[in-house]
Amino acid sequence: MRNFKLVLCYDGTKYNGWQRQGNTSNTIQEKLEQLLSRLLDQNIEVAGSGRTDAGVHAKGQVCSFKADTVMTCEQLLCEIRRYLPEDIGALSLEEVHDRFHARLNAREKTYVYTIWNSPDPNVFERKYTYTFREKLDISSMKLAASHLLGSHDFTSFCSNKHMKKTAVRTIYNIDIQLQDEKVIISYTGDGFLYNMVRILTGTLLEVGLGKKAPEDMEKILEEKNRSAAGFTAPANGLCLLNVKY
Amino acid sequence: MRNFKLVLCYDGTKYNGWQRQGNTSNTIQEKLEQLLSRLLDQNIEVAGSGRTDAGVHAKGQVCSFKADTVMTCEQLLCEIRRYLPEDIGALSLEEVHDRFHARLNAREKTYVYTIWNSPDPNVFERKYTYTFREKLDISSMKLAASHLLGSHDFTSFCSNKHMKKTAVRTIYNIDIQLQDEKVIISYTGDGFLYNMVRILTGTLLEVGLGKKAPEDMEKILEEKNRSAAGFTAPANGLCLLNVKY
Repeated sequence: MRNFKLVLCYDGTKYNGWQRQGNTSNTIQEKLEQLLSRLLDQNIEVAGSGRTDAGVHAKGQVCSFKADTVMTCEQLLCEIRRYLPEDIGALSLEEVHDRFHARLNAREKTYVYTIWNSPDPNVFERKYTYTFREKLDISSMKLAASHLLGSHDFTSFCSNKHMKKTAVRTIYNIDIQLQDEKVIISYTGDGFLYNMVRILTGTLLEVGLGKKAPEDMEKILEEKNRSAAGFTAPANGLCLLNVKY
Repeated sequence: MRNFKLVLCYDGTKYNGWQRQGNTSNTIQEKLEQLLSRLLDQNIEVAGSGRTDAGVHAKGQVCSFKADTVMTCEQLLCEIRRYLPEDIGALSLEEVHDRFHARLNAREKTYVYTIWNSPDPNVFERKYTYTFREKLDISSMKLAASHLLGSHDFTSFCSNKHMKKTAVRTIYNIDIQLQDEKVIISYTGDGFLYNMVRILTGTLLEVGLGKKAPEDMEKILEEKNRSAAGFTAPANGLCLLNVKY
């Protein structure tokens, strides 16, 4: 059996997220497993670097799978590209050592959340940006973001009430950029909890509106309670940019 | 009656083009007339600068309409924005002199045709670019474009076989740019015939592939026959950028 690492991009608009689940259909993992299993005539299971929620996009989702094939990576990539739907793209495929696992070996992830912050119409990027027209105080948002850096228990920023494992994560960087009509927030960390990037974004937006103060971030972290943080920003503004190993 | 000039952008993907027609429904003109008629409680007819085909986009379509209202332009624009669907945006609204007519007074139009010319996946711009993966000789395309500048009878570049009026148009400029994975062709002229920009693009692409020579453009113009030119490039790569008066 050979082990492969595949990097994908996708427009998540019409999918129920990455993860194949009991009775949830139309997931990206499922599409990919069906395609690979048919293509290679064997049962293929794909491991993603992590789940992306329904409606979330990716420009660099990484997954790994084992397969018995004599095809070169170039041939296999070409076949995968031929059969993927137009809203999923294969960026690269390489053979990796036997123990590489896309989720277990992931060391760092970057997510980008894009906000359309303008009274102008948002017609051409509406599926990839969250339209939020109120004026934002970007300096307050940057200050709030600085309080979130480092290792913390992010229970307050997680939608999953039944977390069994640790909720401690390390955020290495939060970058907030103004680019024309958009506010682009990039988050880099060792991993993110369920809905964590969307709740961080909703909370930073509340700071931008003046509803929360930058220093409130510390209290919110301490409370370890979802209701202390801000709203969950919509899925369509979020994109998994890359995963490092 | 006051006269208004409205600038619109739209994602044409799901519309049957600009123009309201006998039994064609779901056009942009129709959507706009229904909205304005309801909003202003009177029968409003909208004149566009010209038709855009089914699936063609606009970043600066201009239209004019007459209405009896006491609303300020700012109020009216705000109301229009409130009720437009998410794939149509109102960029600006101003009151103009009584004889202004968006089609009759149009002096210059710029259309942009965008080609995704790369083996990489085209996931996020697939609705606004034509995916064309073969390698293109851009210098030949530029040379061919230079033969099309100026005033010519563009019958060979028109899909309408029953043209009653003149097919003479003047192209002021054709600009071909490489931008990352994209080839972007901008056409500026005094007006364009039915499908003309899409046929010009298809013909330039055939030059880019070496199927036609740059000098063939002169013969194609002389033939005054649609079959002499290249294929009609798909609607989704085309966008009406602006109209000058």
